[in-house]
Amino acid sequence: MRNFIYHNPTRIEFGKGKEENIGLYMSEYGISKVLIVYGSERIKQSGLFDKVAKSLTDNGITFESLGGVQSNPLLSKVYEGIELAKTKGVEAVLAIGGGSVLDTSKSIAAGAKYDGDVWDFFTYKAVADKALKIFDIMTLAATGSEMNNFAVVTKDETREKFSLTATSVGFPTVSVINPDLQATVSNKYLAYSASDIFAHSLDMYLTATYLPEYMAGYVENILKTVMRTTEILLKDAANYEARAEFAWAATQALNFTTFCGVESNRFDTHFLEHTLSAEYNIAHGAGLSILMPAWMKWQKQFLPERFERFAKVLFNVESADAGIEALKGWYSKIGAPVSLKEGNIPEKDIPMLVDKLSVVAKMWGVEALYSKEMITTVLMNAL
Amino acid sequence: MRNFIYHNPTRIEFGKGKEENIGLYMSEYGISKVLIVYGSERIKQSGLFDKVAKSLTDNGITFESLGGVQSNPLLSKVYEGIELAKTKGVEAVLAIGGGSVLDTSKSIAAGAKYDGDVWDFFTYKAVADKALKIFDIMTLAATGSEMNNFAVVTKDETREKFSLTATSVGFPTVSVINPDLQATVSNKYLAYSASDIFAHSLDMYLTATYLPEYMAGYVENILKTVMRTTEILLKDAANYEARAEFAWAATQALNFTTFCGVESNRFDTHFLEHTLSAEYNIAHGAGLSILMPAWMKWQKQFLPERFERFAKVLFNVESADAGIEALKGWYSKIGAPVSLKEGNIPEKDIPMLVDKLSVVAKMWGVEALYSKEMITTVLMNAL
Repeated sequence: MRNFIYHNPTRIEFGKGKEENIGLYMSEYGISKVLIVYGSERIKQSGLFDKVAKSLTDNGITFESLGGVQSNPLLSKVYEGIELAKTKGVEAVLAIGGGSVLDTSKSIAAGAKYDGDVWDFFTYKAVADKALKIFDIMTLAATGSEMNNFAVVTKDETREKFSLTATSVGFPTVSVINPDLQATVSNKYLAYSASDIFAHSLDMYLTATYLPEYMAGYVENILKTVMRTTEILLKDAANYEARAEFAWAATQALNFTTFCGVESNRFDTHFLEHTLSAEYNIAHGAGLSILMPAWMKWQKQFLPERFERFAKVLFNVESADAGIEALKGWYSKIGAPVSLKEGNIPEKDIPMLVDKLSVVAKMWGVEALYSKEMITTVLMNAL
Repeated sequence: MRNFIYHNPTRIEFGKGKEENIGLYMSEYGISKVLIVYGSERIKQSGLFDKVAKSLTDNGITFESLGGVQSNPLLSKVYEGIELAKTKGVEAVLAIGGGSVLDTSKSIAAGAKYDGDVWDFFTYKAVADKALKIFDIMTLAATGSEMNNFAVVTKDETREKFSLTATSVGFPTVSVINPDLQATVSNKYLAYSASDIFAHSLDMYLTATYLPEYMAGYVENILKTVMRTTEILLKDAANYEARAEFAWAATQALNFTTFCGVESNRFDTHFLEHTLSAEYNIAHGAGLSILMPAWMKWQKQFLPERFERFAKVLFNVESADAGIEALKGWYSKIGAPVSLKEGNIPEKDIPMLVDKLSVVAKMWGVEALYSKEMITTVLMNAL
């Protein structure tokens, strides 16, 4: 195993009814005033907002609130939240929603403790090393944001979709995962979520130049769990056990446990996808299921044995190509798109996408890895 | 999955040469004076002690030291450490050694912040909720103590071997795991360590009345890793990769990740073994390999399907009994004892052991679970 540091300070409160204790959890960390961030008004109709408000009030915590966070969350909303957080003097941010809401909340938390432009943290101009405390109640399992310090935000005007760079202050203090709150997700978004978790796992598994056997087995167990539970949930959305395992697998796939001792630091499909979803505002998971098989066709030349192992372990087929086709077939079966066409992305846009991606690659100094040839090949594979 | 809390604040620094940064890590937490706790003087001959001392000095940290911790560590040594820690006003304890040294260090850390008798924390009279900060450099992989808040200590006069009850203050702040430092362990102790890790995993896996499929796969991956790497290391002690995976599997087996969502709170073989090793001062792992197959023969009646799964997944055999025999055979193969006889424990002592264990079971209020019948049967199975 390669040298590594593992340190994940987030406390997970997992299970039925846990959201009703959110005020108690926050009071344990001395919070008395919080900004609640959420997406659609559905959480008010469902009664979740009121439940949370009651728990806060019962524990002497006052709150402000900011709704309207969208998928592929926007920087303008982050600015709005920072302004509110600063004006009202809140001590913490509480996200109620999925990855987009939590990413917005993390960005607000970091921006509220920074005198400059929060976008500096997304463009390597500064590292967020101070932040308001972050809490969350997850209504969607996919991004793993509840147990890591990642946050992805899109700048409105330029459509640049970049990642926050933060120290451990970007980890939530307490994350509440109640699978029951995630049971209303549509089958379509469940498929996108499965695709997102797959990509978190496969971006590492299929690029690692050194992958300890223990870690291979660890990640394969996550992948198998996602496959099994997705298939159950598509038929039986009320299956709590499958919902719970799906949620926990999502958390594990991106809480740094999969990176321990591995030689890899690449997120190929995520790198490519962020420009896609920023440009067309498609769901992140949909962009990933379009790109994953196409990228795999490019990537297999570098790690042929890993691809054969993947094919065998996940789909019980014998070749890298058969494994890629099997994954593509599985994405189709669960209802995730597998081509640019299915994502309504016109072929004629490919040169423009290649240009945009090349600019980002250059900014990050990774143009050798993400060459025009590589990007073009992957996008053509995705037609 | 059942409701659970997961919160593990320990920072792991894993890999080659990490012990040389211990002073840096400690200074990040504001430590300026530390008590070093260790076992034999070998760490001075090997140069490890000097390396650590230099790193501390380079970072402006002064230290006291306390050696002589034995396997099955004694309360008298804990008292000695508490006295030293209090007198010298240290802010942290640094364990250099294996589980026994770390358990002693945790107990010292808790006792140094307590006005009463530290033994209160072992007899449910008090919970340790304050402690000096704990750091460690692990020279043996087995107990998982580097990433949990457990500590087991034996009271000299009564030979009671009990567990510390602590809040999160019992977790190490930073644990250094350099597999190279663990390469000098004898084959005998490697086998005992494998047996200890197996017991941490199997005590849960074979008692859980609800075991999510994800967690089953997670634990099986740990067990397979331990089997594979133990066999490599017995032949090739210098194999760094196997040593590293063995070490990481040991940590994972008892850092609370295996308990997430599981319905279980039993440590059957550990409960039985502590009295064995306290009474005869045999190695904990040796006591566990003696008891595990014997206990499994008793336990299989309650979860027959789990035992069949274990047999199939670990040894590719078809029945619970065949799985138990296969595990027993594997323990023998690696050099771990599998009977009281092999552990030099006379048959005539069984009634005395049953009596002692019954007293402990009563003290803990678990005599229904650990009945005289159960204890007698397991010990007779172990003849």
